Amino acid sequence: MAGDVAGDAASLQRQLAELRETVAGLGARLRTFEDQVAISQLVARYGPAVDSGSATAAAELWAEDGVFEVPPYAVWTGHDEIAGMVDGAGHQGLIMNGCAHVLTAPLVKVDGDEARAWNYALNIRWDAERDRFWIARASANSWWLRREPAGWRVAHRVNRGLDGSPEPRALFEASTQPFRAGSQPA
Amino acid sequence: MAGDVAGDAASLQRQLAELRETVAGLGARLRTFEDQVAISQLVARYGPAVDSGSATAAAELWAEDGVFEVPPYAVWTGHDEIAGMVDGAGHQGLIMNGCAHVLTAPLVKVDGDEARAWNYALNIRWDAERDRFWIARASANSWWLRREPAGWRVAHRVNRGLDGSPEPRALFEASTQPFRAGSQPA
Amino acid sequence: MAGDVAGDAASLQRQLAELRETVAGLGARLRTFEDQVAISQLVARYGPAVDSGSATAAAELWAEDGVFEVPPYAVWTGHDEIAGMVDGAGHQGLIMNGCAHVLTAPLVKVDGDEARAWNYALNIRWDAERDRFWIARASANSWWLRREPAGWRVAHRVNRGLDGSPEPRALFEASTQPFRAGSQPA
Repeated sequence: MAGDVAGDAASLQRQLAELRETVAGLGARLRTFEDQVAISQLVARYGPAVDSGSATAAAELWAEDGVFEVPPYAVWTGHDEIAGMVDGAGHQGLIMNGCAHVLTAPLVKVDGDEARAWNYALNIRWDAERDRFWIARASANSWWLRREPAGWRVAHRVNRGLDGSPEPRALFEASTQPFRAGSQPA
Repeated sequence: MAGDVAGDAASLQRQLAELRETVAGLGARLRTFEDQVAISQLVARYGPAVDSGSATAAAELWAEDGVFEVPPYAVWTGHDEIAGMVDGAGHQGLIMNGCAHVLTAPLVKVDGDEARAWNYALNIRWDAERDRFWIARASANSWWLRREPAGWRVAHRVNRGLDGSPEPRALFEASTQPFRAGSQPA
Repeated sequence: MAGDVAGDAASLQRQLAELRETVAGLGARLRTFEDQVAISQLVARYGPAVDSGSATAAAELWAEDGVFEVPPYAVWTGHDEIAGMVDGAGHQGLIMNGCAHVLTAPLVKVDGDEARAWNYALNIRWDAERDRFWIARASANSWWLRREPAGWRVAHRVNRGLDGSPEPRALFEASTQPFRAGSQPA
């Protein structure tokens, strides 16, 4: 009888090991989706932050050494410069006039603690005289992201107007390729 | 031998308890993402409902006592008023002319059975004469949501044109702050 | 004593069975969200693919026998025809001029190995002379999707301009109804 019980114990141990493996698999799958959602939410925070003039909140979407590149106009590096862009006369003029930085839900590819994402950004402005809005800029956006202790942050974002030039097409072309950690912004 | 088996049983019980805790943790993490996705999907249902003139479907995105506020134009309270807006001459004129209520993927913050979300809405209209569309309205949207027995519903939505006035900026500024259940629309 | 141990074994077996059921439930819930995210990501790949002129990548979003219908202009069936549209003079003219195929995050309904989704597509074009973008087309999109061995693919996509005609409204009206596998594009 004790032998049967020992057999039971061994069987239970095997079943437990199997279930533990199943649970680990679920955990890994869940983590993939947590990363997807976390990165999509990070991107979704940009527009409301800059259109409310929340300079610090906008800057903190980036890693401390993060880069925001808007060729050929500007490159901002680090929290202070990115916050300075939001507080600057150019951006303040836009939001006092009325504008919407509309970003679309990104395509996201994660590899371990790095990720890349692609989406569109529309810079839409109010024209009080004509009583309508107009689109000043429609751009290809490419994001490099990094998992930090506090969560995902933007390592580098490039925003390029879709004006027919080859550079924004090259940014978007990369979205059709597999992403591997260690890829660098060109 | 029976002693060893009893030891096995105790060890199995401990392992089972540990695994049960791991599984409970996964369940809680999964629920967070179910809420995120459910709320994003609720928001995604608005545009197709109103642009097809589906008055009941649009109204039922809201809680029975839900509010839809579009300052300074209108406030609709409850299913009947919201459905009435969709069936009304103003909205029917828009969809017979051709229009698109384009809402972006929201930033979502959940706290228990309440949530808040922020996104953009574009009111885009067809101009047959000029053979193109134009943007009548680009607005800041702030949503208060409630988990009901049948799922998430809109308790209150405010839609404010981004025309340079401070109110839409204040709506969006709140997106940079933590959300706690019990917060009320201002 | 062995009797107690046998009782322990039976109890452990029951607890294990219960936990296994809990885990299976989590797995099913997770799969629902994997499908949602996978389909949203599939849709998010379209814009960057066509705006970079990546004909093969765009075509491979569809099933081998997939259909892309843009009434009243065109119907493309299968990978070769869809890739041919991207490589064709019309589309190449658009991207050399500068354009953005902006798709919104879809509403998604899954039933087993089939799904349907709805979203908006904006065809936005650069006007170098006026130094701004304009919206050539805002359309209702309805997608039928199929789970294939390699993942979700588009079985059929219909894109209809929201020009006031009843057909795009009918496409969007279907988004307010339950979705059942086996539904066919009208």
